[in-house]
Amino acid sequence: MSLVRVQHFSISLDGFGTGEGQSRDAPFGHAGERLHDWMFETQWGRRMLGESGGTAGVDDSFLRLFTPGIGAEIMGAGKYGYPGWHEDPEWKGPWGSNPPFHTPVFVLTHHPRPPIEMEGGTTFHFIDASPAKALEAARKAAGGKDIRIGGGPTMIREFLKAGLVDHMHIVVVPILLGRGVRLWDGLESLEKSYNIESVSSPVGVTHMTFTRAAGH
Amino acid sequence: MSLVRVQHFSISLDGFGTGEGQSRDAPFGHAGERLHDWMFETQWGRRMLGESGGTAGVDDSFLRLFTPGIGAEIMGAGKYGYPGWHEDPEWKGPWGSNPPFHTPVFVLTHHPRPPIEMEGGTTFHFIDASPAKALEAARKAAGGKDIRIGGGPTMIREFLKAGLVDHMHIVVVPILLGRGVRLWDGLESLEKSYNIESVSSPVGVTHMTFTRAAGH
Repeated sequence: MSLVRVQHFSISLDGFGTGEGQSRDAPFGHAGERLHDWMFETQWGRRMLGESGGTAGVDDSFLRLFTPGIGAEIMGAGKYGYPGWHEDPEWKGPWGSNPPFHTPVFVLTHHPRPPIEMEGGTTFHFIDASPAKALEAARKAAGGKDIRIGGGPTMIREFLKAGLVDHMHIVVVPILLGRGVRLWDGLESLEKSYNIESVSSPVGVTHMTFTRAAGH
Repeated sequence: MSLVRVQHFSISLDGFGTGEGQSRDAPFGHAGERLHDWMFETQWGRRMLGESGGTAGVDDSFLRLFTPGIGAEIMGAGKYGYPGWHEDPEWKGPWGSNPPFHTPVFVLTHHPRPPIEMEGGTTFHFIDASPAKALEAARKAAGGKDIRIGGGPTMIREFLKAGLVDHMHIVVVPILLGRGVRLWDGLESLEKSYNIESVSSPVGVTHMTFTRAAGH
């Protein structure tokens, strides 16, 4: 069965999935790269940067689950670009000509535009839709494979509230951002719908996996 | 040197140290016992309940650090009693005649009253003081031993803001309370002052220790 998955979404210890003051030069606002530094210690992360080396333990193992089995991604407008990108007709996301998705990607936006085909198999589709409707569109495009819920925090929260997430991998980074966009707001008792496991890694982050519980 | 320590203070995944709606019958409000269930799986926790058995792994090991080396505790008014306890001249805390502290305990309150001597070495002192002044009083009473900062979340946050905490052990419990009193508010960049380690336990909680970094 095709699952709806969140893969390695990083939050601060105080629950922020992105910082305050996001801009073209600072996609995560005042958080900078601090939520994602742990990724670039791994083999998977180094390869993303075009480098070699890196760790091959628990952090790397979780990251390698990013691509296998995924047929499409849904992402929020704030992941696709800086505030105001919809006024720039040339904007094609921050990933360069060959984005790391290699599948159809559905961008949730109140300003739809025609699809953009990139190198490497990524095509961006722009839709103004509810989580359920967006998931329907992504499922059609995914050829029976899983759907990745790409973030940011606001859209993950909305998919969780709608009960649409089957599996979620959250990475708690031991920093206190103090401000930004919280992941957990309004999700009281979410734990009742999931089996939750936690494991801390030597670099200091804690991986938490949420797997939908039987009957939920 | 005498250290200021927070021992096994539990918070929810969304950062709440207590729930909403605290009362005499519900000291942690709608959180109930869910923040502390993990403790009663251990040998230490079972013994608190007058029972035998329990686990002897990482959870139990951390809990056994509660007593050794401590010469006094400082606690907030909300830990000592339900909202309004200061209007009850007979109130002696929720722990019965022999509280588990066995040292002087300084209760921070805007309604001081004469000290109360309990069985087993616990004496409650009631003071209306800043964190720094309270610590001064506790240090005098502690005979060179460490001071435990007992909670709740508001007073721990105030001691952290004042830079007074040397060592802190926080337990993240995988539940989402959604409402209550947050521990982490207003503590942006706290991680710069501490070396932080995390370890997840088989029961699903994550122990985080904060040890003051050199120069902080």
